[in-house]
Amino acid sequence: MKYFSERKTVRRYSDKKVDLNGIEQMLNDAMRAPSTGNMQLYSAVITTDEDVKKQLAPAHFSQPQLMSAPVVITFCADFNRFVKWCRLNHAEPGYNNFQSFIAAALDAAIFAQQFNTIAEMNGLGCCYLGTTTYNAADIAKVLELPKMVVPMVTITVGYPADDSAQVERLPLEAVIHYQKYKDYTDADIMRLYHDKEELEENKKFVVENNKETLAQVFTDIRYNRKNNEFFSTAFKCYIEECGYPFPKE
Amino acid sequence: MKYFSERKTVRRYSDKKVDLNGIEQMLNDAMRAPSTGNMQLYSAVITTDEDVKKQLAPAHFSQPQLMSAPVVITFCADFNRFVKWCRLNHAEPGYNNFQSFIAAALDAAIFAQQFNTIAEMNGLGCCYLGTTTYNAADIAKVLELPKMVVPMVTITVGYPADDSAQVERLPLEAVIHYQKYKDYTDADIMRLYHDKEELEENKKFVVENNKETLAQVFTDIRYNRKNNEFFSTAFKCYIEECGYPFPKE
Repeated sequence: MKYFSERKTVRRYSDKKVDLNGIEQMLNDAMRAPSTGNMQLYSAVITTDEDVKKQLAPAHFSQPQLMSAPVVITFCADFNRFVKWCRLNHAEPGYNNFQSFIAAALDAAIFAQQFNTIAEMNGLGCCYLGTTTYNAADIAKVLELPKMVVPMVTITVGYPADDSAQVERLPLEAVIHYQKYKDYTDADIMRLYHDKEELEENKKFVVENNKETLAQVFTDIRYNRKNNEFFSTAFKCYIEECGYPFPKE
Repeated sequence: MKYFSERKTVRRYSDKKVDLNGIEQMLNDAMRAPSTGNMQLYSAVITTDEDVKKQLAPAHFSQPQLMSAPVVITFCADFNRFVKWCRLNHAEPGYNNFQSFIAAALDAAIFAQQFNTIAEMNGLGCCYLGTTTYNAADIAKVLELPKMVVPMVTITVGYPADDSAQVERLPLEAVIHYQKYKDYTDADIMRLYHDKEELEENKKFVVENNKETLAQVFTDIRYNRKNNEFFSTAFKCYIEECGYPFPKE
């Protein structure tokens, strides 16, 4: 199907109004995606209010697509609703643990991606904000998330403003393995990443960031150790405070 | 689009052969799904060999769809490839931490769900095995996964053997919130879960399991505290051993 091979992330939106009834229908269809034991361990908080978007902006490092998108949806791992249902039904929930958090996190991601696909197939443009797990506590505060509700991914939604280009992907052989995982030799890695490194826009990216290699742009700037470690602690603390304590051993 | 509202999980497969070139094309298209910083922190291990399936079976509690599916795909969170690339490019990776594991886990789930959608739209039937994070270490051993590769979800794939029924979902209002999360009152929960509880097959489920309520089937049997806690420790240990130590504080 042509859509899947041609899809791309859209960060700039036009002024065209997004119909919220349409968004609801898309979310309703996305709920048909698989979930753990059909428990549907997720929720979606829809932000359209300019003030709420402004409050969310710092948590997302003020990425411009957040303010310019008419609709912003925060997909959360959510055991709150299910646990409330258990308690009302003489059932003692045992979901305050790491494995349950993971199940809900996967449910939320799968639901979000199904929505993303449906929205794009209906002509909308979408962008994931990977900052959601960095500043989860701040996002939770703005959205008034109760215990056991952890924001996992955010998608900005609107009609595309321009015809932005599709970016590169690794060749399929970089990603698939048959029967057993065949680990990569140095030569494999060099071959598999060759086209990515040789792309004009990636070469420009290296120069603009004053680095020697494309990999250094990732390790030194975009996804550096210091931030990764800082946000590891912050996110773990938030998940635990939220009601999913991690195993001690 | 009709597909999305009508899709369902398929656990029983016909003898019709699945074309692996087709599967590869679908995975290639699925790689166009969004990923963190376009790092594509995932891999897919394709199992078609009967012996390897037999080795995987105990880790998945011998769920019958594993052996009966012609194709089984284990989607893994994978920083191994990216880290090798960094090292070959004079870039010092800082990805041995919890936040990086989460980014890769989300990438893997999003990639898996995109493949699931494409496969179903092409007439295949799929089933997620939620057991993947329970016995990740056993799966990793069978598939010879190196460090930094964590199995997250498994999808069994084949042509549908029968026209199994679509199962219920909660109403949309159970899942969406506008601007702020509006927490549920007891009356909300009772209303939102009413139809689910009243379904004939769910009532039968309660009786068959010798329970008083549907919620008890989940808390006492399907997803009980003892298992959740046991597999929380097992999965956390595996992730840490694998090269993503969790923050200590």
